[in-house]
Amino acid sequence: MAITTSTHDVISSERVEGTSVYNAAGDKLGSIDELMINKRSGKVEYAVLEFGGFLGMGTDRYPLPWSMLDYDTDKDGYVVPLTKEQIDGAPRYTETTTPDYTPEYSQRIGSYYGVGI
Amino acid sequence: MAITTSTHDVISSERVEGTSVYNAAGDKLGSIDELMINKRSGKVEYAVLEFGGFLGMGTDRYPLPWSMLDYDTDKDGYVVPLTKEQIDGAPRYTETTTPDYTPEYSQRIGSYYGVGI
Repeated sequence: MAITTSTHDVISSERVEGTSVYNAAGDKLGSIDELMINKRSGKVEYAVLEFGGFLGMGTDRYPLPWSMLDYDTDKDGYVVPLTKEQIDGAPRYTETTTPDYTPEYSQRIGSYYGVGI
Repeated sequence: MAITTSTHDVISSERVEGTSVYNAAGDKLGSIDELMINKRSGKVEYAVLEFGGFLGMGTDRYPLPWSMLDYDTDKDGYVVPLTKEQIDGAPRYTETTTPDYTPEYSQRIGSYYGVGI
């Protein structure tokens, strides 16, 4: 057993949900609404960023590949290496229009962010 | 792209949380409280089963390896291949005594269920 093994290797889904997300410049983008988990592998493929809207209504959802999220203890939130412009053009949907996460949709997300899932 | 690829390969963490869990005999054991996710790999390692207690107070939590859960559409819940006796002796904790998920603790769970994580 490596001595450096963290004693906090795991985190609760309930802890992740609601956590703030910042861009590289330190601006808050929004917060994590839910995690999308591959049923078979059990791997969290996307953390769905929620932001926009007004008084909590009509917010947009942006599925971000889990591997893009970097936890920042100082901010107590995730940092993603994206500009606001990159987020503006990113695949999104509204609360009432959740898409099927088909292989094609996954490909579109991965291609946009340049990240393999 | 395989024609048989499901269009619903992913599931939301919010959908999993609260879902009922049954044993092989069809008895309801409890429900999923939260998911424990490996921070680095993004893999869901455990679905934490909640049951026992009285009027929702003092429930026990049983971390179940994700791979043990089998979704049953008829029951709209997960089925785990365990008897009540097996659950009775399983690693557990209370809401107020969540352990560190150390490698040793993971080993204990894996060893109890005979499942590698």
